[in-house]
Amino acid sequence: MFKKIAIVGVGLIGGSVGLAARKKRLAKEIVGVCRREVSRRKAVKYGTVDRATLNLDEGLRGADLVVVATPVGKIAGKVKDIINRAENKMIVTDAGSTKETIVKSVEKLNSRYTEFVGSHPMAGSEKGGPENACGRLFENRDCFVTATKNTNKRALNKVKKFWRTLGARPIVISPEEHDKITAKISQMVHVVASGLVIANKDALKYAASGFRDTTRIALADSDLWKDICVSNSNNIADALDELIGILEKFRSNIKRKKVKRMQVALEEARKLRSGLNRN
Amino acid sequence: MFKKIAIVGVGLIGGSVGLAARKKRLAKEIVGVCRREVSRRKAVKYGTVDRATLNLDEGLRGADLVVVATPVGKIAGKVKDIINRAENKMIVTDAGSTKETIVKSVEKLNSRYTEFVGSHPMAGSEKGGPENACGRLFENRDCFVTATKNTNKRALNKVKKFWRTLGARPIVISPEEHDKITAKISQMVHVVASGLVIANKDALKYAASGFRDTTRIALADSDLWKDICVSNSNNIADALDELIGILEKFRSNIKRKKVKRMQVALEEARKLRSGLNRN
Repeated sequence: MFKKIAIVGVGLIGGSVGLAARKKRLAKEIVGVCRREVSRRKAVKYGTVDRATLNLDEGLRGADLVVVATPVGKIAGKVKDIINRAENKMIVTDAGSTKETIVKSVEKLNSRYTEFVGSHPMAGSEKGGPENACGRLFENRDCFVTATKNTNKRALNKVKKFWRTLGARPIVISPEEHDKITAKISQMVHVVASGLVIANKDALKYAASGFRDTTRIALADSDLWKDICVSNSNNIADALDELIGILEKFRSNIKRKKVKRMQVALEEARKLRSGLNRN
Repeated sequence: MFKKIAIVGVGLIGGSVGLAARKKRLAKEIVGVCRREVSRRKAVKYGTVDRATLNLDEGLRGADLVVVATPVGKIAGKVKDIINRAENKMIVTDAGSTKETIVKSVEKLNSRYTEFVGSHPMAGSEKGGPENACGRLFENRDCFVTATKNTNKRALNKVKKFWRTLGARPIVISPEEHDKITAKISQMVHVVASGLVIANKDALKYAASGFRDTTRIALADSDLWKDICVSNSNNIADALDELIGILEKFRSNIKRKKVKRMQVALEEARKLRSGLNRN
């Protein structure tokens, strides 16, 4: 499908892209571009790429697909850098959890060689690093792929096909819509899990399995998540407002022992939740 | 340890008590008391008790330990009934998720034959019924055992030993303190999981594994949980108030992009959460 894939940032996500792309033989060569020597060695050690380099120009040379999988706060800068350095035609995509900021800042640039299409595979783990990468990480997962009026159709289709080949279900969406949805279904949920832990800091020794499940995602890297929160701040704030409204309604019904209303709400949630596949 | 154990209400918890007590040979006979014939048959079919009856008097006759494992809203009434019917000396305990209402209403009664000690094993599953009972359900779980100025010491020690033999760690606590703690670490968490599902009702098709973990407990029986919420309403309302305050602080820091404060809070939560054992 490609001659050379360059993966910029070989952590959990970049490493998993590499493993899956190698397994599916998606390119003649898959090269990792790392920022530090220790990461470069790890990327190779865990078999996530054919080879890895610290030199971005070397990584980009001859690549027809570039996947930027750095922490979200660094993606826009890195993509601009790539656009400026590109010396052959290439499609550039990313794996960032938020899209509007990244896509808007990238689309402003004139680019002779590159076509950018934003991506966000809905997969991950609270355990980061290439040592936790998994070639099946994207299987049966949704992967958002962004389209705007500036998006090149051919590049969009290639990026969709790329994720589909890695096992994901591509969903084409505008960056704005994407960020509204993920603020609610993902980022707000992280914040709430963290809030539940903090609210219980004096009672954690009594936590049972339900609490552990509910707050597992609060184990995620705080540095990464503060960047995600910053890059989608308005939508997350709106999502939190909506949730707080729902919790205040619960609170009032519980306080006033409105049994019927409580059951209706709990049952609505149970039914909705049981519509999701298990685990 | 006992001559006869009567388990009143043989669902997930009562059934698991029965399975574990049979395995440990805690009594010469373990009898289930059920309300409906279909439950009586199931209790026997899944091997949770030696035999089961619909007749409470028959179940109580000769029992020296009675475990009331009905839904929480029915426990106080059932314990009173048992106290009134008892014709031999027996210790009565329960497995209800809240304790203050139950213990207070039971302690008012004069009882010639019975000693009541409240219990709350911190174990369960969103899947109810004796068909999901498990003899290892209480292993390595906390089990709260309530003590008040009216609690008989000998009975308290026997109940502690009972749970310890089933594999749990007994924690002696006042009913008031118990209800404050579990409102935060358990009941509020359920309400929040339900709230997260409702807030996302239009986005559920995009839910990934993190969302599923965080909201798994929203699958619990809504009938059971509305009773739990009613029986501990003031404490749960207070716990929700505290959480809402924490979420509003998060919201404000995210909205105003206070990066440092966000990271400090997310990192505090991550550290606290990683102090809990995994899974």
